[in-house]
Amino acid sequence: MKEKLTIVKVGGAVVEDEAQLSQLLRDFIEIPGAKILVHGGGRRATKVAERLGIETKMVDGRRITDADMLEVVTMVYGGLVNKNVVARLQALGCDAIGLTGADANIIRSDKRPLKNGIDYGFVGDVKQSDGPKIARFIDNGLTPVIAPLTHDGQGHMLNTNADTMASETAKAMAAAGYDVTLIFSFEKKGVLKDANDDESVISCITRPDFERYKADGTISGGMLPKIENALAAVDAGVSKVVITLATAIHRQNEGTVIKSL
Amino acid sequence: MKEKLTIVKVGGAVVEDEAQLSQLLRDFIEIPGAKILVHGGGRRATKVAERLGIETKMVDGRRITDADMLEVVTMVYGGLVNKNVVARLQALGCDAIGLTGADANIIRSDKRPLKNGIDYGFVGDVKQSDGPKIARFIDNGLTPVIAPLTHDGQGHMLNTNADTMASETAKAMAAAGYDVTLIFSFEKKGVLKDANDDESVISCITRPDFERYKADGTISGGMLPKIENALAAVDAGVSKVVITLATAIHRQNEGTVIKSL
Repeated sequence: MKEKLTIVKVGGAVVEDEAQLSQLLRDFIEIPGAKILVHGGGRRATKVAERLGIETKMVDGRRITDADMLEVVTMVYGGLVNKNVVARLQALGCDAIGLTGADANIIRSDKRPLKNGIDYGFVGDVKQSDGPKIARFIDNGLTPVIAPLTHDGQGHMLNTNADTMASETAKAMAAAGYDVTLIFSFEKKGVLKDANDDESVISCITRPDFERYKADGTISGGMLPKIENALAAVDAGVSKVVITLATAIHRQNEGTVIKSL
Repeated sequence: MKEKLTIVKVGGAVVEDEAQLSQLLRDFIEIPGAKILVHGGGRRATKVAERLGIETKMVDGRRITDADMLEVVTMVYGGLVNKNVVARLQALGCDAIGLTGADANIIRSDKRPLKNGIDYGFVGDVKQSDGPKIARFIDNGLTPVIAPLTHDGQGHMLNTNADTMASETAKAMAAAGYDVTLIFSFEKKGVLKDANDDESVISCITRPDFERYKADGTISGGMLPKIENALAAVDAGVSKVVITLATAIHRQNEGTVIKSL
């Protein structure tokens, strides 16, 4: 039987709020079996950049990362947020280890080429995630805490989307033989049928469901790429993808489950 | 026969200068066998703190670390400097992994109590360095790159002197069965007999030599704790401690060797 592995993606809003982070980490360690935590940190990066007099430019929710901003995100994601999470997990008895894609060369990326004429700067599109290498940390009893940074193999760090880091890691671990559950935590109870009704959670979405919801406009905007991403992970062998509330990551049967069929 | 392990400590001045860092890393990978790199980053931390409007206070060369400064050093040492070094080593084909004391719980410390009425703030005095745990990274083919940060086991990061991190790691690895050489690199060719003559390197210092040099004033100031530290490491089973030029870390028989007898 395959070893179970749960990968939790948590956004910046939760990791940057001490009370929410404490709750999240207590819930995280309650998840049985092997675990990986992937975190964001964008809001904190924006604040630090502002204090340093560096302007934050976003295009469609994605950060334009020039050389100065790359230093900021390397400091904030790889240092401040990552080490704070690791120290707190250690205090809870969880043997955490902070990693970026550069550490042990676990996730390598290519600097994003111009897209529709937009230069995203030092942003990485994941090229290769090394499942067996990540598995070795787990085999050694460690819990990886992954910051949204990769490297290009040429000596440069690259800013990388945390959702993408989570799904690419999930795919690599599925390919390495794990029974992987990928949980995207956020501020809603799941994917909503009615954006104005927080209780209207869709319990399960398959690809045919998704196509239908997309066609009739039930699902739109930023949720579209998130679900595309989730379906791609499922197609690549990830057992289950769940989109749920940050305070429900340890509870089964809550949120929206994304399934292949 | 014991496995050879070389631990190199490099200061902030070198890691923060791109040309010097490139040279250092090329020299570092030429050292045969297992290796660990311990780095500083104080000058960069001071610069970032200044840009953030945070005042740097030093007492006897040691940084007073209040809550704001702890965030700065966690960002700069654990993020900016550490990940830059890791990405560059990866580009040179060295499978580096960045670690603080919190990661995998390798080095735990106690928050320093008041010393002579001085509150150093969030500064850690190393309590325990886990040699077998660090050895596991090496056994997995990884090269640890250690930032001068530890944790208290209660969820807090602590700023920790890089020289101390290096010697405590060396002691722990010697206790774990390695034949350890500890190299402190700096801007001089070694310990000088005459501070005004850069060529007056003392090739070897034993404890009796040290007592004599201390008594007659040949060695004084900041070099005293450095050599005390080195002798303590040798007494604790570290095979050899070398104090040498940053550009000579890979060369045998240069600099000052500190020996027990």
